Amino acid sequence: MLEICILGTGAMMPMPTRKLASMLVRFAGRLLLVDCGEGTQVAIRESGWSLSRIDMVCITHFHADHIAGLPGLLLTMGACGRTEPVTIAGPLGLEAVVGNLRSIAPFLPYETNFIEFGSPVNTFDFNGLQARSFALKHLVPCFGYSFSLPRAGRFDAAKAKTLGIPLSYWSRLQKGETVEVDGKSYFPSQVLGPERRGIKLAYCTDTSPTNAVEEHCADADLLILEATNTDGDNAVLHGHMTFAQAAKLAAQAGASELLLTHFSPSISEPAAHLGLARSVFSNTSAARDLMMRVLSFVED
Amino acid sequence: MLEICILGTGAMMPMPTRKLASMLVRFAGRLLLVDCGEGTQVAIRESGWSLSRIDMVCITHFHADHIAGLPGLLLTMGACGRTEPVTIAGPLGLEAVVGNLRSIAPFLPYETNFIEFGSPVNTFDFNGLQARSFALKHLVPCFGYSFSLPRAGRFDAAKAKTLGIPLSYWSRLQKGETVEVDGKSYFPSQVLGPERRGIKLAYCTDTSPTNAVEEHCADADLLILEATNTDGDNAVLHGHMTFAQAAKLAAQAGASELLLTHFSPSISEPAAHLGLARSVFSNTSAARDLMMRVLSFVED
Repeated sequence: MLEICILGTGAMMPMPTRKLASMLVRFAGRLLLVDCGEGTQVAIRESGWSLSRIDMVCITHFHADHIAGLPGLLLTMGACGRTEPVTIAGPLGLEAVVGNLRSIAPFLPYETNFIEFGSPVNTFDFNGLQARSFALKHLVPCFGYSFSLPRAGRFDAAKAKTLGIPLSYWSRLQKGETVEVDGKSYFPSQVLGPERRGIKLAYCTDTSPTNAVEEHCADADLLILEATNTDGDNAVLHGHMTFAQAAKLAAQAGASELLLTHFSPSISEPAAHLGLARSVFSNTSAARDLMMRVLSFVED
Repeated sequence: MLEICILGTGAMMPMPTRKLASMLVRFAGRLLLVDCGEGTQVAIRESGWSLSRIDMVCITHFHADHIAGLPGLLLTMGACGRTEPVTIAGPLGLEAVVGNLRSIAPFLPYETNFIEFGSPVNTFDFNGLQARSFALKHLVPCFGYSFSLPRAGRFDAAKAKTLGIPLSYWSRLQKGETVEVDGKSYFPSQVLGPERRGIKLAYCTDTSPTNAVEEHCADADLLILEATNTDGDNAVLHGHMTFAQAAKLAAQAGASELLLTHFSPSISEPAAHLGLARSVFSNTSAARDLMMRVLSFVED
């Protein structure tokens, strides 16, 4: 099970009624934050999720509305008692940019580690969750993220009994481990069926339409895409997408569901424009600040 | 007339129910901002005062809760159409710190000018308002600010008539100008009574108790002081003051009114602790976010 909280859905500048776009991912009790604009730490408090459980911060790019809140968040995490290291991931140059921002926040009671993405596609692990970053198409280097939770095949209890494997070893086999009983090895492949559908979440902002979405967000259960503008001219000018363009990418990627975010301050009610997207990809919603979702394995 | 808006009253970190301490001063239709923490630009929007009229930003010191919102504010002012220069004032090193913060906000459609305070006391003008910065006593270099609006003496119309000065020259004499009529000079001192009480506003955060408050905030009509803590141990440790210490300084300075601000997140209801201050200086209130005040000349 994977949980998300959309902390904000805004672009450019924080507004009284809309915080800047960012997302918390909760998995196995720990938190990963994607982007940290001005006010994101306030949104985290409002979510009720614990600031001090954020083990990793993934930055999409170095525009202020996606990273300006980082020094404040890091300080507040320290003030809340954090002592374990925090990993910060993002485009090349990340450590230098964070270093600059930390000229007003030089002392933290924990270590910060950095992952800088040197390739168009990068993989990393978050607490057992398989994460991937991939280059988007924006005015500056920018990365989208996908988070996948694979699911092993169904456990065949009858077969395990037939093989004479004691019950106490079953859970380890279910987790993919090889076990040894009385000098004899048993392998997961002997008692597990074919791998089942897992969970895939993807988050892309900021970007113009790009094939990277179709490639790296393929078959996502939940695809979260920026839809900064309703008209194409404004979107093209600033390296963004329209509602309709995002919907087209979701269809091409074969996503199950599309959630739009990163709305221009000029769009006062994003849901009012959903028709532009739904005519292309019907299962589309407009994200709202503090919207929470649980992504569970589909029963089979 | 001088107007202020207390944008926030919080210390350390922005909270859902309390924004970080900062203040807008409005004079002659233009705005001066004191401090810009994370979320200050949102508070300005909530105040209804125009972001694009901010001609000057005065920074007290380089702790994140007082300056982290600056890159975002500068960008938003640009996005709102500002093209006139903005002056930023603060401690030595200001331009370098702002330069670091602007690594995520490099392009602005207007110039920024800097005033770095090289002395313990500095004076500057804001649109005719006499401003002064003075060194406080904090963990890092930090300045308080006072803003004074002097008031000329009462105009003696009878005397002006006796001297034979035509009516059309009176307003210039009232403004302190010397005028020449038919080759003869007339001086303000001939028609103005003694200087009357003007308006004085002072704002000090962050600081431990220091004589600078008594010296530079003397006779303030409104004195705004930090009162971060209720207990002395915490205050001393972090270079702050208690409610009672702030009240003592207000009494020593001979202020007319004291407004407390910059409350620790651990203080959920500052007004509940006002007794600590009022027993020392009775005319004390706890500032609230978005509190507005008009400071007018006292009639005489």
